[in-house]
Amino acid sequence: MHVLITGAAGMVGRKLTARLVADGRLGERPVERLTLADVVLPPRPEGYAGVVDVVAADLAEPGVVERLIEARPDVVFHLAAVVSGQAEADLDLGYRVNLDGTRALLDAIRTAHVEDGYHPRVVFTSSIAVYGAPLPNPIGEDLHQAPLTSYGTQKAIGELLLADWTRRGFLDGVGIRLPTICIRPGAPNQAASSFFSSILREPLAGREAVLPVPETVRHWHASPRSAVAFLVRAATLDTALVGPRRTLSMPGLSATVGEQIEALRRVAGERAVHLIRREPDPVIMGIVQTWAEALDASRAERLGFVAETSFDEIIRVHVEDELGGVLP
Amino acid sequence: MHVLITGAAGMVGRKLTARLVADGRLGERPVERLTLADVVLPPRPEGYAGVVDVVAADLAEPGVVERLIEARPDVVFHLAAVVSGQAEADLDLGYRVNLDGTRALLDAIRTAHVEDGYHPRVVFTSSIAVYGAPLPNPIGEDLHQAPLTSYGTQKAIGELLLADWTRRGFLDGVGIRLPTICIRPGAPNQAASSFFSSILREPLAGREAVLPVPETVRHWHASPRSAVAFLVRAATLDTALVGPRRTLSMPGLSATVGEQIEALRRVAGERAVHLIRREPDPVIMGIVQTWAEALDASRAERLGFVAETSFDEIIRVHVEDELGGVLP
Repeated sequence: MHVLITGAAGMVGRKLTARLVADGRLGERPVERLTLADVVLPPRPEGYAGVVDVVAADLAEPGVVERLIEARPDVVFHLAAVVSGQAEADLDLGYRVNLDGTRALLDAIRTAHVEDGYHPRVVFTSSIAVYGAPLPNPIGEDLHQAPLTSYGTQKAIGELLLADWTRRGFLDGVGIRLPTICIRPGAPNQAASSFFSSILREPLAGREAVLPVPETVRHWHASPRSAVAFLVRAATLDTALVGPRRTLSMPGLSATVGEQIEALRRVAGERAVHLIRREPDPVIMGIVQTWAEALDASRAERLGFVAETSFDEIIRVHVEDELGGVLP
Repeated sequence: MHVLITGAAGMVGRKLTARLVADGRLGERPVERLTLADVVLPPRPEGYAGVVDVVAADLAEPGVVERLIEARPDVVFHLAAVVSGQAEADLDLGYRVNLDGTRALLDAIRTAHVEDGYHPRVVFTSSIAVYGAPLPNPIGEDLHQAPLTSYGTQKAIGELLLADWTRRGFLDGVGIRLPTICIRPGAPNQAASSFFSSILREPLAGREAVLPVPETVRHWHASPRSAVAFLVRAATLDTALVGPRRTLSMPGLSATVGEQIEALRRVAGERAVHLIRREPDPVIMGIVQTWAEALDASRAERLGFVAETSFDEIIRVHVEDELGGVLP
């Protein structure tokens, strides 16, 4: 089968590519061809026997998605997105990539469907940002989408379009609302959520990290490995079981910052915990207060989506996948 | 003040224009100028002392909304829309008018805001079609928007964009989710909801009407006069009281078809009721079954929105506004 990944150069895109290359298959079917697209050229995966096309292109530019769809990929993972902080800082960029880019992709698939009956599985990554405070705990899937960011607005619109295109029969869409991905590899960034990862990742590597919020803050997490497993599950599940509400809230682990730190203590000891420096930041606290604490993911769980059940496990996944299985 | 109405040639647009002309004011302020736009040339209102511009134009065409916004109308009523049945039959037209047209209008207002601080009140007409079956009764405002039509999808997207543009400070938006308008004046049309009006309107005029569903069908109604009152209220209320969730479910009357017929009997007698011919239509029944039976409009009610409380009243409004106050 032929798999297209948009946003393939991003963290999740690279991990998904690596998983497909390692498995050699998606569900029952061998993956013979990969098309990897992003605004920057995605790395060419090593050790893959199939055909790979790597494409550097902006999905919202005329003609780009049509070329990506030309060879009729069986599965499209649409991961390309401007992240939350950037979509808030640059309104035009966010709407251009997250809304116009998604619409261009859906329109190109529709055109192909009309031409020759093309009907791919399309997996769309949405976000808990489609919900806005005040939030119940847990958030049920029947809760009003009332986002409080432009990113959340754009993702909510993507969910609506995906459902309409699926209902119309142009494609077979599955949206997945990802929890905050923890532990994100790489350097700390400017995202307000960055500390959830850095208070674990940095001490595990022997470096200091800053904690800007109290330990009582509760949030909704899953590992990068789980995020990739969600994508694979979304690409292979029997969508007859999903019904018309095509976006699913993914399972995750609801944990406080204090629980994260206790897990760090168990896995890496007191010395690691001492590398966390408390620097309360009222701005970050104000933002984080409006975020989801937990989602009711029972529909996804019944469909076979599984996440970690403890932060010890999330840390172990990071040690295995990013640190070669050993603590420094 | 200067008022712009898009979709001004439609039924609600014409009635809103007539109300503004009759009142001469909107809230506290005199209406000195009207810009009336639609794809067909809106009628020029009679007996209005202010300045009127009538414009025949497609909002999604380049440059059109910029010209409408050029004189910086204080209030924009954005009523222009392709209706439900047509948006379902013609996918491109529906997205073009209901999504692209709305976005073009919002973008033009944003550009004007950046230029000179322009910040109009924008009243957007949404619909109960943003909700999709299975539906609770009543539908709370915190219910998931899971539309089952392209029209509902487009209106849900409009609500999201209006909220984001309001949050960004480009405009002061209020969305209103209108009930089914009953009694619609004019001829019966192809809409699945047409019978809710025609089983009253036609017998009141001495003509036969067809009832395609059982009398037990329950639905959510308000008169054209109430719809206009909702628009006026949305244009004049203190939006500091609304909060970030900018679209309000409008009040209405939840009534069965049987209750409609009983009201007709009380107002117009047995002879009128005998003009209703029962012709069960499983297709229409299938569509109507998925529709809202009642909404929880308590938030709008607290903000001063009021609808009819009996079908006798809805029929009396029709007799007064459409039949010159007398039964033929």
